[in-house]
Amino acid sequence: MDYSRVFTQAIDRLHAEGRYRVFIDILRNKGMFPNARCFAGHNGPKPITVWCSNDYLAMGQHPKVIAAMEEALHDVGAGSGGTRNIGGNTHYHIDLEAELADLHGKEAALLFTSGYVSNDATLSTLAKVLPGCIVFSDELNHASMIAGIRNAGCEKRVWRHNDLEHLEELLAAEDAEAPKLIAFESVYSMDGDVAPIHAICDLADKYNALTYCDEVHAVGMYGPRGGGISDRDEAASRITIIEGTLGKAFGVMGGYIATDRTIIDVIRSYAPGFIFTTSLSPVLVAGALASVKHLKGSSEERDGQQAAAAMLKGLMAEAGLPVMPSVTHIVPLMVGDPVKAKRISDILLAEYGVYVQPINYPTVPRGTERLRFTPGPSHTVEMMQELVGALVEIWGRMELRQAA
Amino acid sequence: MDYSRVFTQAIDRLHAEGRYRVFIDILRNKGMFPNARCFAGHNGPKPITVWCSNDYLAMGQHPKVIAAMEEALHDVGAGSGGTRNIGGNTHYHIDLEAELADLHGKEAALLFTSGYVSNDATLSTLAKVLPGCIVFSDELNHASMIAGIRNAGCEKRVWRHNDLEHLEELLAAEDAEAPKLIAFESVYSMDGDVAPIHAICDLADKYNALTYCDEVHAVGMYGPRGGGISDRDEAASRITIIEGTLGKAFGVMGGYIATDRTIIDVIRSYAPGFIFTTSLSPVLVAGALASVKHLKGSSEERDGQQAAAAMLKGLMAEAGLPVMPSVTHIVPLMVGDPVKAKRISDILLAEYGVYVQPINYPTVPRGTERLRFTPGPSHTVEMMQELVGALVEIWGRMELRQAA
Ligand SMILES: Cc1ncc(COP(=O)(O)O)c(C=O)c1O
Ligand SMILES: Cc1ncc(COP(=O)(O)O)c(C=O)c1O
Repeated sequence: MDYSRVFTQAIDRLHAEGRYRVFIDILRNKGMFPNARCFAGHNGPKPITVWCSNDYLAMGQHPKVIAAMEEALHDVGAGSGGTRNIGGNTHYHIDLEAELADLHGKEAALLFTSGYVSNDATLSTLAKVLPGCIVFSDELNHASMIAGIRNAGCEKRVWRHNDLEHLEELLAAEDAEAPKLIAFESVYSMDGDVAPIHAICDLADKYNALTYCDEVHAVGMYGPRGGGISDRDEAASRITIIEGTLGKAFGVMGGYIATDRTIIDVIRSYAPGFIFTTSLSPVLVAGALASVKHLKGSSEERDGQQAAAAMLKGLMAEAGLPVMPSVTHIVPLMVGDPVKAKRISDILLAEYGVYVQPINYPTVPRGTERLRFTPGPSHTVEMMQELVGALVEIWGRMELRQAA
Repeated sequence: MDYSRVFTQAIDRLHAEGRYRVFIDILRNKGMFPNARCFAGHNGPKPITVWCSNDYLAMGQHPKVIAAMEEALHDVGAGSGGTRNIGGNTHYHIDLEAELADLHGKEAALLFTSGYVSNDATLSTLAKVLPGCIVFSDELNHASMIAGIRNAGCEKRVWRHNDLEHLEELLAAEDAEAPKLIAFESVYSMDGDVAPIHAICDLADKYNALTYCDEVHAVGMYGPRGGGISDRDEAASRITIIEGTLGKAFGVMGGYIATDRTIIDVIRSYAPGFIFTTSLSPVLVAGALASVKHLKGSSEERDGQQAAAAMLKGLMAEAGLPVMPSVTHIVPLMVGDPVKAKRISDILLAEYGVYVQPINYPTVPRGTERLRFTPGPSHTVEMMQELVGALVEIWGRMELRQAA
């Protein structure tokens, strides 16, 4: 057995497909988002504008968030020092869980070290606790949900993306008495489309299924209090479990679920991914708490983001760029080839100081490689005009396909 | 299908076994570890002494760590805003990975959001990349390693704890050409015993196996630079992959692996648990960097911890308390019953202001429930004498078994 040959071949395959990933080395400048510094090796160090951050509302630099983190750091120190059960359960954790439960109108919430872990741990545990459970999973569900369902070792049916007829067909085909769980996202973050939550919940009612909705790309950004698409659509009470992240619009790091007290108790008691790990640093929890609280009461950031997204989509369409249909804050530009997507991104960084990451397989299906822009409230009109000008120049230079 | 009945039954089972977990609500006081505040609901609020923190060296309150985190917070903000590949790769991450690679004498290192995730993601990916891989797992391996091996879906052979003959028997029984990986811990954190690393590596050499060593409860604490037991035993270069956490002796949060460049490239490129998640907050990374650097150059904390552990073990043994054999900083006291273990812990907290968590199944095997003390450099002799006095009183009151 020649181990190093196998490992080298695994890497060679990525190079051959043009999807070997090079991490761009940056530091954002607090107080000046979306500006950042890019380091040597990428024609730097030099100032750049970040167009692909998932700190969608720039809450990672909000004075209230920074102040809360600084205070916690000086009050209780750096880490929690333990798992939730053994020394790592702080008063901050309890407060944030109460705040998140309230945000989604649920009885209780539970924190995890990330959104990924919240999906993986919850889905795998839930399907194990319910013997014979069948999970109905939207085909575009995130890798972390797929991991959770796979790790549950349960039966799984994949329904075509947002296709309610197909979902119903699959539900109807199963034993009425079998436990069922419908798992989906509210905002699909690579396309920017949205799930028909009410219609999904109608099917869940009809077939007595639980529902699990990943609101990672919606919390903080939709609904009057930032509770996500389920808040906007007044559907939160119909969903069994709402899952979210503290690392995107809330600007910090961590993940959570909100649901009823008994299910929280089950996950808290049975999920290895929750039990056997150091809890979130109280510094992060304090920051997230400030962020969630602020966005509950302020719509300014949400409105600014929606305005910026609408404007950028408009400018791109006008310029004949192949911007993909998106009903949300996400602005994807189709390229359809991994090598070209990377090349455009490299030129933008080297020649224009614009940082946008190419999105390749396995994050999106092969042949749909794209650039994905996330304009936010701190991107100015001038920045957008510069960006679109740069893209038009590169599209011409590389003789790329325009919008149909 | 009555979902809520199934969920309620799952919780009832825990109550019936006396192992339903109640989280103790605390805040540690920075600058005054091991002192903390305990909140209402636990006969509080009141001051307590924490005896079960895994912030083993109190680095979570070290001025250098706090200063580094504060600086990062003000320089770049709260979160990273993205995955490592999409906007979330900061210069701090790159620096810390270089520092960790150096700590273990390896070519490269890779950060994860936790030690749990580093085990799960690395083991599951490694065994998938090596078709037909057989993992040889010590029976006392941590839940996160078990999860990773299980999620790999590969063949697994469990060897009796630290039993080299059994390991060799299992290795010899397999096809010489099959890829093999031996997975073990250096310090087993519930018993405090240590793996014979050199002897395991001898077997790995003989049977052409890779080795994976979880040093979570050893990094920062053993070896002249805090590289763990493999540093102390001068065995690091013989281990293929060393895994560690930033959340215990380093006092912050996060996990990592250190190994050769090609393996890092494989895990970085193929592990969903690494790829599809917001990267560690740069604030945490900056704190961990300061902590690792400090402990590379200072043995004061390590020496203080070893002295405290030796003293506490001695005091307990003298008092006739059933302290378990441990060759490390971990001081476990056998109780052997989940209800009694919880009761002792409750009395200690309510009457003595001493916080030590009972350790029940599934963290330890049934029938070996215990209290687990982690004295550190900031626990004083007076605190230890008080603690032992309290334990002797409770042992008498509850008529518990003394040391043999
Ligand atoms: C839909 C979705 N769910 C979950 C996650 C994971 O969340 P986190 O970054 O907090 O791990 C992500 C992205 O990272 C995501 O896009
Ligand atoms: C042996 C072992 N490995 C890994 C972990 C997980 O590390 P982390 O707390 O950083 O997730 C733990 C404890 O939490 C552990 O005890």
